Amino acid sequence: MTVASGIPNGDAAKSAPVARRLASVYSEVQRSRLDHSLPLPSVLKNSFKVVDGSPSSAAGNPDEIAKLFPCLFGQPSAVIVPSEAAELSAEQKLKIGVVLSGGQAPGGHNVISGMFDYLQEKTKGSILYGFRGGPAGIMKCKYVELTPEFIYPYRNQGGFDMICSGRDKIETPEQFRQAEETAVKLDLDGLVVIGGDDSNTNACLLAENFSKNLKTKVIGCPKTIDGDLKCKEVPTSFGFDTACKIYSEMIGNVMIDARSTGKYYHFVRLMGRAASHITLECALQTHPNITIIGEEVAQKKLTLKNVTDYIVDVICKRSELNYNYGVTLIPEGLIDFIPEVQQLIAELNEILAHEVVDEAGIWKQKLQPQSLELFEFLPEAIQEQLMLERDPHGNVQVAKIETEKMLIQMVETELEKRKLAGTFKGQFKGQSHFFGYEGRCGLPSNFDSTYCYALGYAAGALLHSGKTGLISSVGNLGAPVEEWTVGGTALTSLMDVERRHGKNKPVIKKAMVELDGAPFKKFASFRDEWALKNRYISPGPIQFVGPVADAINHTLLLELGAQA
Amino acid sequence: MTVASGIPNGDAAKSAPVARRLASVYSEVQRSRLDHSLPLPSVLKNSFKVVDGSPSSAAGNPDEIAKLFPCLFGQPSAVIVPSEAAELSAEQKLKIGVVLSGGQAPGGHNVISGMFDYLQEKTKGSILYGFRGGPAGIMKCKYVELTPEFIYPYRNQGGFDMICSGRDKIETPEQFRQAEETAVKLDLDGLVVIGGDDSNTNACLLAENFSKNLKTKVIGCPKTIDGDLKCKEVPTSFGFDTACKIYSEMIGNVMIDARSTGKYYHFVRLMGRAASHITLECALQTHPNITIIGEEVAQKKLTLKNVTDYIVDVICKRSELNYNYGVTLIPEGLIDFIPEVQQLIAELNEILAHEVVDEAGIWKQKLQPQSLELFEFLPEAIQEQLMLERDPHGNVQVAKIETEKMLIQMVETELEKRKLAGTFKGQFKGQSHFFGYEGRCGLPSNFDSTYCYALGYAAGALLHSGKTGLISSVGNLGAPVEEWTVGGTALTSLMDVERRHGKNKPVIKKAMVELDGAPFKKFASFRDEWALKNRYISPGPIQFVGPVADAINHTLLLELGAQA
Repeated sequence: MTVASGIPNGDAAKSAPVARRLASVYSEVQRSRLDHSLPLPSVLKNSFKVVDGSPSSAAGNPDEIAKLFPCLFGQPSAVIVPSEAAELSAEQKLKIGVVLSGGQAPGGHNVISGMFDYLQEKTKGSILYGFRGGPAGIMKCKYVELTPEFIYPYRNQGGFDMICSGRDKIETPEQFRQAEETAVKLDLDGLVVIGGDDSNTNACLLAENFSKNLKTKVIGCPKTIDGDLKCKEVPTSFGFDTACKIYSEMIGNVMIDARSTGKYYHFVRLMGRAASHITLECALQTHPNITIIGEEVAQKKLTLKNVTDYIVDVICKRSELNYNYGVTLIPEGLIDFIPEVQQLIAELNEILAHEVVDEAGIWKQKLQPQSLELFEFLPEAIQEQLMLERDPHGNVQVAKIETEKMLIQMVETELEKRKLAGTFKGQFKGQSHFFGYEGRCGLPSNFDSTYCYALGYAAGALLHSGKTGLISSVGNLGAPVEEWTVGGTALTSLMDVERRHGKNKPVIKKAMVELDGAPFKKFASFRDEWALKNRYISPGPIQFVGPVADAINHTLLLELGAQA
Repeated sequence: MTVASGIPNGDAAKSAPVARRLASVYSEVQRSRLDHSLPLPSVLKNSFKVVDGSPSSAAGNPDEIAKLFPCLFGQPSAVIVPSEAAELSAEQKLKIGVVLSGGQAPGGHNVISGMFDYLQEKTKGSILYGFRGGPAGIMKCKYVELTPEFIYPYRNQGGFDMICSGRDKIETPEQFRQAEETAVKLDLDGLVVIGGDDSNTNACLLAENFSKNLKTKVIGCPKTIDGDLKCKEVPTSFGFDTACKIYSEMIGNVMIDARSTGKYYHFVRLMGRAASHITLECALQTHPNITIIGEEVAQKKLTLKNVTDYIVDVICKRSELNYNYGVTLIPEGLIDFIPEVQQLIAELNEILAHEVVDEAGIWKQKLQPQSLELFEFLPEAIQEQLMLERDPHGNVQVAKIETEKMLIQMVETELEKRKLAGTFKGQFKGQSHFFGYEGRCGLPSNFDSTYCYALGYAAGALLHSGKTGLISSVGNLGAPVEEWTVGGTALTSLMDVERRHGKNKPVIKKAMVELDGAPFKKFASFRDEWALKNRYISPGPIQFVGPVADAINHTLLLELGAQA
């Protein structure tokens, strides 16, 4: 059986008991995905060697990053290139650990499958440990040894349930010591951290720390449905493709419903707290009438009133065309992008921590005039949410604020005014939706399945060649899989520093939606047309076979096109 | 080009302008569906004749139904059977109207396509009018003449946007007169009403009415995602299959997320106000930990406290197994099934219509003791919803009550008590979802595509043979399409009377979930296992090609099996 088929030790894995178990707990589509073949980039299919790429610096403050990562800073990227003969020893037996860190994203299981297959193919006799429940599993040395039988049922499946995930961080000296203990106890040659920006920052810190006195190398993998962990060498994070396709399926269905019924405005909030990539991609896939992009709101310093007016203006213009329906997309993190809301929340946190909140509302005099005005502008339910719900640190839980319902209420209020003024003669009925959990654990698209498998396979190769502090990087993604490029990028090159509690803290900067980037520019050039003419597109459910199964998302395609 | 390919006049339909338009507004999956071939039952592919089946009565009160439908009552069903030569004249030119009535369901466009193709193939030169915006389009004579170019872009597409739908009823003598005027004006030989139980009741009244002095025949088609319009001859309503598959895709994704994260209980409310078929089908497809079936709640006369306790008991048992996560399915209409809630709402409607609701709550003394107790048991937000939101008739808008959030709050309260009592030591975090609009306009599954096409084709044949007052009936659905049976069932045979405002009103009785039916019995035999062991199944996105594309839903399969 060849590597490309993706199922080494297939006979053992597909034993009768496994087959029986799968028959009872898997749907037919899940089962059909198990044996979906995973093509590898040509460079990984044949003999290769790992060579140095260009030297690296940092995304910002290179001097500070150099101080924080004295061992790792400046190391070149790694490039996997064809070679006459295999350069890495097939005799070497490696002990490798892998951990899933943070929120789920479709494809995580395939990264692990790719690593596993690499080890089976290239360093037979190696061991792969899966740390359970995220980074806490490393600290507590909670793990499972991954076998073909264990891994097989998770191939091309959604979710992180093979070894589960967690949101713990390895931060304190004590926690680093625990991680070291585990590395020593398991005699780890390497560790692969599959995670987002925070987790990869953590991976880099571990790599730096381990490099001082341990043999354990650390490699990161770019995961997040939010799509905000990317750079030139890492064109996309895995999971983004699948999640956006799932959300777009739902949005497309809702659009056709809106047009068929003719009487509802659907307000769809989409996951993506920090960056609005998901909302932008879904807009490109479906052509909604109204789309709010957080980064644009922030850059133009829009107020909540501005955003409301923009929506209401479109609704009024549509009603003149006899369209009393439509679809609006809103990023989960919208509120975080509006400066005046941030100011109000900061003032409320302060007041609630120190003042008595009286029924009569005298406490409101403590608010700055602009914040008071905004507070009074908000619907009552949102006022209550801002007053009541606090996390353990005393902060408003912004993610719990149902922005889509808030906007519906504010739009209703504004439309009432315009009705009285005679400038709106239509009808408005809002329907709210939040799409989030539905997309994080779907069956990965063919793209995510293949991309993740290559990321994992590459991570195996990078560890095999003794690399550390790199993030697995697969590029040239617009080309056929055979032509994809493979290597590793210095994690320090993605870093900048942030000042926190008087200390310089290294962070991988989130990749935000760029207003001069190709995806936003395409959206911006079409949105006025989409607002008034109905150009709804219904992408339909993800297909795994047939002519459309291998299509990749617009954001990636446009960004690759702009680079080319 | 053959009928089975589903594209008569394909060259005209797929003209360059049409192709250009589709390229810009259709996704690749939408486009790929346009030419999906629609097989017909053998009996419709070859020469056939329409013969009488067994005579019919009524679902209840046959004497009353006989009085209400003197022309139609007792007519036999129609059966389409093979014949040596075509019996119906190909020379006859028919003028037929079609209307979509009520809520959207995937497949409606294919019913129209099936009718259209029948007319093109068997009565060349016939005309098909599509009434716009539902029954109001009949009354106002608002229509479009359907042509190949017009219909082609909607083949196998979701939504009702080809001619849109509406919820108006043709009820008053004046409205019947308007409908007659339209029938006369357009010289209609027939009218096909695509709708649910109410719309088919209306179709039957129209058929009866027209039969007195018009040539216009009326045929119904069984449409509703709710699955509550069915009988022996009509094994399922169209749209149910697709909608349940879309909801189950989402539920499956959420389940894998729950298991991966390990810390959330997802409460999923599903469309289906009157009957719980959707919830039951989704449970059979996905195996949730907790499923509430409205009909069981009603039959066992459960209180809201009983339902809450059932959920809390499962949560407590799961937490002993260290599962602090899970998935719960709830039918939209749950509240309607709980007698005590109905009682409370009735009392509130009365009080709010006549009493002053004082801040101090003295008005509550007007409530019966049991209703007061229930009212106090409800979360504050639900109390407010019950007090505030009234429809134009002064009634509570039950559909607007977010039952899933209500249950989460009641579960939280009960778990707090048990925590204090020491009988619950786990964690509980609820996440709420409502899946409804996402499923009504999805691309129809292969089953719904084919089923609808056959329903429409059969409706054409029934009208061609001069039948009226029948509902298009396609049976033997468990067999290959070639073996499906085709005919029409007397609408009066589905009817019973209800006493309303001192008058006998004919109604098609909704088919509720039967607790001794095969689908519920299968669910009931597994639910305890699903509650504590995690048997989650993720059905994945609907596939249109490949080995799993033609599977039909569990409810239909089980009901067919029980019949066989």
